[in-house]
Amino acid sequence: MPETLWRASLVLALYRNRHVAHARYFQLATTRPDGRPANRTVVFRGFLGETDSFIVVTNLHSAKVAELQSSPWAGVCWYFPMSREQFRISARGSIIDGHTNDAANALARRETWRGLVESTQRSFTWPEPGSLRDSSQPFIESETDPENPPANFGLVVLHPVEVDHLELDGNPQNRWAYRLDESGRWQGREVHP
Amino acid sequence: MPETLWRASLVLALYRNRHVAHARYFQLATTRPDGRPANRTVVFRGFLGETDSFIVVTNLHSAKVAELQSSPWAGVCWYFPMSREQFRISARGSIIDGHTNDAANALARRETWRGLVESTQRSFTWPEPGSLRDSSQPFIESETDPENPPANFGLVVLHPVEVDHLELDGNPQNRWAYRLDESGRWQGREVHP
Repeated sequence: MPETLWRASLVLALYRNRHVAHARYFQLATTRPDGRPANRTVVFRGFLGETDSFIVVTNLHSAKVAELQSSPWAGVCWYFPMSREQFRISARGSIIDGHTNDAANALARRETWRGLVESTQRSFTWPEPGSLRDSSQPFIESETDPENPPANFGLVVLHPVEVDHLELDGNPQNRWAYRLDESGRWQGREVHP
Repeated sequence: MPETLWRASLVLALYRNRHVAHARYFQLATTRPDGRPANRTVVFRGFLGETDSFIVVTNLHSAKVAELQSSPWAGVCWYFPMSREQFRISARGSIIDGHTNDAANALARRETWRGLVESTQRSFTWPEPGSLRDSSQPFIESETDPENPPANFGLVVLHPVEVDHLELDGNPQNRWAYRLDESGRWQGREVHP
């Protein structure tokens, strides 16, 4: 079995589910400072270049950034409703902010910003997420520069080390487990669902 | 604001999304023995009686059971695609197996089993989940008793202590944070998305 079949399977799932907008959403679990798991929906923004790592955007003040900085491991769960398959991915998360010295990372941050729709760009001017809101007051948002990201715009890059791929419509189901070994090569095997 | 508005909001979301089968699926994050988060899709099987706690079924040999027994905190993320809203729930997880001495728990286990479709019941006779599979061999499954659950059938009961409810279609979005206080009462407040 080709070792990185998981990536081809994920690309195929994205294609097969392309008509369902929320098939590009997945759930990202991190560990809170109190040790409990946190879990939220995020939007897939593509792979980082030709790597196996993939990108989500974030407000750098959001809890997931602090959580990943203190405990870098993330648990991704991605369910594809049309093809009825699930990817569970254990990944290390890293953050790209405006201070990066890496040219490829800086480019990824800028290009990802430019790919966002205007309403998503404007959400980066909203008040601090999670702060108390008085909904009798008008909601304040500002214009943003469509070409250049604001200081609070960052990327979370997820670097997979384990992938569990489950097809619910199988014989009766199909499941594969992939793992990045110590030499940096992917190993895959078929397992019972 | 009524303190337990989150439960009414969740019931309403279930109703509004009733025509989408996968709206009853949510993502459950737990902590692995190595401290990393694990995340998987599970199916909502209802509330436990009149409580705020809700049920998923499990094979008692599955990793999530061992994980919750060593670290009971769970991170639930539930996205509703039709109404475009998300519930993030921090919950304590407990397990109900066939050895429970609690009559209500034993009843919930039996009633939940009886509510499963036959193909789901039969999946409890499959080989150990995650064990190596030789797909050149036929897949083995057995009949089950539709009335009485097998020994490996259990419930995970999730007892919420924090709920974050986000409506993506708002003005421009709406978000509420609820928390169970030390006296066992829910407190809610509106926060910035």
